Amino acid sequence: MAFPAAEANLLAPVPRPGKIVCVGLNYHDHAEEQNEAVPDRPLLFGKVGTAVTNPGDPIVYPSALDEVDYEVELGVVIGRTAKDVSADDASDYIAGYTAINDVSGRDAQFADEQFFRGKSYDTFAPMGPDARLDPSQLDIACRVNRETMQSSNTQEFIFDIDELVEYISGITTLRPGDVISTGTPGGVGIFRDPPELLEPGDTVEVEIDGIGTLANPVVAERE
Amino acid sequence: MAFPAAEANLLAPVPRPGKIVCVGLNYHDHAEEQNEAVPDRPLLFGKVGTAVTNPGDPIVYPSALDEVDYEVELGVVIGRTAKDVSADDASDYIAGYTAINDVSGRDAQFADEQFFRGKSYDTFAPMGPDARLDPSQLDIACRVNRETMQSSNTQEFIFDIDELVEYISGITTLRPGDVISTGTPGGVGIFRDPPELLEPGDTVEVEIDGIGTLANPVVAERE
Repeated sequence: MAFPAAEANLLAPVPRPGKIVCVGLNYHDHAEEQNEAVPDRPLLFGKVGTAVTNPGDPIVYPSALDEVDYEVELGVVIGRTAKDVSADDASDYIAGYTAINDVSGRDAQFADEQFFRGKSYDTFAPMGPDARLDPSQLDIACRVNRETMQSSNTQEFIFDIDELVEYISGITTLRPGDVISTGTPGGVGIFRDPPELLEPGDTVEVEIDGIGTLANPVVAERE
Repeated sequence: MAFPAAEANLLAPVPRPGKIVCVGLNYHDHAEEQNEAVPDRPLLFGKVGTAVTNPGDPIVYPSALDEVDYEVELGVVIGRTAKDVSADDASDYIAGYTAINDVSGRDAQFADEQFFRGKSYDTFAPMGPDARLDPSQLDIACRVNRETMQSSNTQEFIFDIDELVEYISGITTLRPGDVISTGTPGGVGIFRDPPELLEPGDTVEVEIDGIGTLANPVVAERE
């Protein structure tokens, strides 16, 4: 028996990853919009696994924040314990791919300088659906209330998936269920002129070719 | 039957925490040695749970790094799921306390600006032993090869444990086994004049009143 599409993919592929390793500045166009040089290595930061929320579930806009933003990202779900893996062998350690919205409290991120807090509020990691596919040439987009805000292709990666797995597994042991969030392309709200950030009532859709669409409404935190 | 002390406390209290939330700049003397103003809120960053290593086990000095440093910290082990907990109720959510060595690759930390990588190499979170006690007036020290490098007391906290639990649980749901690492006092190696960083062959001991001593040798990564 087949399920209607609207009922499929209701859960994140990993409900609570052991870790989410995020990559900053991994699309050429996102580096350009920030006037940042192309980095000589992946720039890493962390996002807590308890921030994961399911497709369709709300992104809760914290009352403590004023600048909440979207970031579509291709997520890599690790399938086997990986330490010091070479780029050539990286695909052997990957269970599949998913869509992630790396929701970001810009005011927290910039005030702290460390990105951790602004990226780690509960519900700030919508994730799903998932697929097994070749990740090298995927259209990737983000829409807010059906308006396209980000539109790129994974061909624009500065560091490809295999290079990321080699670099990150040289630092920290990746375990099954760990997730690498591979960076966002240009077009994020904070760098638009004028900025176009999320508001309660918005719906954010991130879509990646061959994986599908992840849609989440934004709701205000109950005081 | 009693175990000799040398055989006790062989394991970290949590072998792989769901998350380790670290606090920067939480001792008055550590803010002073960096010429940093006292922050108006706790400054948070993340360290991966897979960095945890047991008492007595080696801290592996990565071949990619040149400036590996020690940081004694009091760790708070969460015992009950905590979200939006008030400081008055914080102690109800704490299972106990532990000693942590927040080992830090300064070259990675400063080059990336994000602290995540420099704090997250495998074995960079020695942890243990643990105890249940009043954390408000504990002597806390770090020794390298039996020379005292850090010596302070938790009375020097800028934000106390209850305030940290309130602040962090207002951002992210804390779950049983999650760990808050509450910051390090003055005396870290990188800010000494001249700097005194760790080298393979060193032994680092961190000691906290009522909890005990956590000792780990530093060994070079095998190439």
